[in-house]
Amino acid sequence: MKIEQEAYVVPGFLANGIHAGIKEDRKKDLSLIYSTVPATAAAVFTTNVFKAAPVLLDMERIKSGRAQAILTNSGNANAATGPEGYGDARATSAALSKRLNIQDDLVLVASTGVIGHRLPVKKIESGLDKLIKGLRPEGVSDAEEAIMTTDRFPKIAIRKGRIGAREITLCGMAKGAGMIEPHMATMLAYVMTDAHVDGAALDRIFRRAVDQSFNAVSVDGCMSTNDTAIILANGAAGNPVITNRSKSLPVFQEMLVGVLSELSQSMVRDGEGATKMIRIDVQGARTCSDARKIAYAIANSNLFKTACFGQDPNWGRIIAAAGSAGIPLPVDAVDVYFEETAVFKQGRGVARDMKKLRQIMSKETLRLRIQLDMGAKSFCLYTSDLSYDYVKINAHYHT
Amino acid sequence: MKIEQEAYVVPGFLANGIHAGIKEDRKKDLSLIYSTVPATAAAVFTTNVFKAAPVLLDMERIKSGRAQAILTNSGNANAATGPEGYGDARATSAALSKRLNIQDDLVLVASTGVIGHRLPVKKIESGLDKLIKGLRPEGVSDAEEAIMTTDRFPKIAIRKGRIGAREITLCGMAKGAGMIEPHMATMLAYVMTDAHVDGAALDRIFRRAVDQSFNAVSVDGCMSTNDTAIILANGAAGNPVITNRSKSLPVFQEMLVGVLSELSQSMVRDGEGATKMIRIDVQGARTCSDARKIAYAIANSNLFKTACFGQDPNWGRIIAAAGSAGIPLPVDAVDVYFEETAVFKQGRGVARDMKKLRQIMSKETLRLRIQLDMGAKSFCLYTSDLSYDYVKINAHYHT
Repeated sequence: MKIEQEAYVVPGFLANGIHAGIKEDRKKDLSLIYSTVPATAAAVFTTNVFKAAPVLLDMERIKSGRAQAILTNSGNANAATGPEGYGDARATSAALSKRLNIQDDLVLVASTGVIGHRLPVKKIESGLDKLIKGLRPEGVSDAEEAIMTTDRFPKIAIRKGRIGAREITLCGMAKGAGMIEPHMATMLAYVMTDAHVDGAALDRIFRRAVDQSFNAVSVDGCMSTNDTAIILANGAAGNPVITNRSKSLPVFQEMLVGVLSELSQSMVRDGEGATKMIRIDVQGARTCSDARKIAYAIANSNLFKTACFGQDPNWGRIIAAAGSAGIPLPVDAVDVYFEETAVFKQGRGVARDMKKLRQIMSKETLRLRIQLDMGAKSFCLYTSDLSYDYVKINAHYHT
Repeated sequence: MKIEQEAYVVPGFLANGIHAGIKEDRKKDLSLIYSTVPATAAAVFTTNVFKAAPVLLDMERIKSGRAQAILTNSGNANAATGPEGYGDARATSAALSKRLNIQDDLVLVASTGVIGHRLPVKKIESGLDKLIKGLRPEGVSDAEEAIMTTDRFPKIAIRKGRIGAREITLCGMAKGAGMIEPHMATMLAYVMTDAHVDGAALDRIFRRAVDQSFNAVSVDGCMSTNDTAIILANGAAGNPVITNRSKSLPVFQEMLVGVLSELSQSMVRDGEGATKMIRIDVQGARTCSDARKIAYAIANSNLFKTACFGQDPNWGRIIAAAGSAGIPLPVDAVDVYFEETAVFKQGRGVARDMKKLRQIMSKETLRLRIQLDMGAKSFCLYTSDLSYDYVKINAHYHT
């Protein structure tokens, strides 16, 4: 898929991506996002106990609420590499900050790829001059290409809006595509914006937007050691600062949720081996948490996922999964719909028109609704099916 | 696989299995186990909210602690069939008890197969005369054959032992093979014994033995609506009654755990599409519950399961899964071993001899050990890999 480079320009940001020799083929593997001035920054990281070295380093640095550069390599995750790996992450940061002539602690780093191998620091350092030399406003698509691993297509989303008299731009990029799960869905996602936002507001709405997007998708229920989502807001738009009390906050927030949702849904579409995107709406729950648990129990059921791949309207697997979520459900207060067609009502199957159901199941995007009669809370989740290709990709990925 | 019929005889028990026309091919689909006298009985059922009609009926009846017959059909789960399905379960029980001339509430019923279709009661009733006529001591293998669905081989285990001067026999049969998960692993498992055991002791040790066997295996992390495990003890051996205070209790218990473990491991070997059985030992945990959660997080990771299928010693996926189990783990207090070979120690990968690791991964039975440094509790879990065939079987199973 060819990306229109000009489309992804954010004032005050430069980007680039190159091949530095980390991956064995000639694919791009080193990516840089650079703000011409220090930016307000917020980030969310994996909750996995085994956090990769770059995650540990970034978690320290993000506390300042400021950052200016994000250096990412693909091909090596720098995870399960102990204190040496942490040192390697610091070394690449130092090499970059020296060349860019910026404060070292304004550099964030990220890695994705194979776990348990030392980062090829020398290769990264050798690539930095070329990487920096190529920095340009329209370099986002190259930067994106260089963070991809098993992704089949790049994931970039952009929104433009107005805060007062000023136009602001939000541009996000992400990579999937396996290990997509709750509590930080993406392996890596970066958002650049020229909006002027204060640190407290940025942190709060970024976390909320991540919850509504990356934390509402699932591909295979697996959580990575490297998941990282970062937003940089450099203020180049010159708008009045957006704070938690600004009237413009909802405008910015809606744009942000729009960008992150587009990216997270792209990740599901590009889920390893995915042939379908499935939207699961759980409505009428007592609490959002209940609705979320039921939605994830269905989304992470291999029996459900394989039925979707087989285009089989097997609603029995949906209720079996929903019933195992650990939420007490009055059996006769649960209705299940495929699009608008009821398949289960008041404790019994009501699927009659199998031809119509099979036609629904043959679509590339499925919509499934679980209607409870317990309250007014809901949760919407996007997931993918489980295909031969998922097994193929993951059985033959080399360590 | 040909079963030696004579091998599976338990004094005082008769069994049979026939084709009654529920399945479309000529495969056996109606199974009966019959004790010549009312037996002491205990049972464990699925914890799924959506319990199938026969489960709801049996849960009522088992309260008496007595049963004499287990009638099972395959090809139809009688699940998600509402009050009508409950009536159907009662109707088949009534038809059987009348013909056997036993109390109706001493009949337990079970169903396995497609969810959401009314039970073909007429077909079952029409088959009962032939089913009963063929009842015989060596009919266990036919009874087993008639409860199988996607199972590739029958699962029967037998143990003989002595209580005082009397020989006692324990014989168990089970079916898998998908929807194998914690909190009741098997779809269906029945144990017959001629031992004389009192109700309280039978219930207690049966639950404990189920925890150590069926609740310690996982194929796909999916929980069924129909899971049922039943034990009938008819006392035909004439041994002094086994109570919770008997010295003979441990002997009986060890035999029972032996039978159930053999059955549960057979279910894993026969897991849908399984090419390998994987034993996961989590040791040195603070609590058993922690060890169990970590073991299941690994066992249910599709990335781990596909790596096993691909014979790839991808220990990174093991620590990623272990780290997402929600248990706080000091990263440098976790060691991971493939058989006796360490692959991860003190926060970093130590896998060196890849040839040896690949040789280990090529085995039909894998042994994996997670050694924590937090306590003295442990948990041992058996699971299977995730293959093309799992997807094939479950994508093309017809609703």
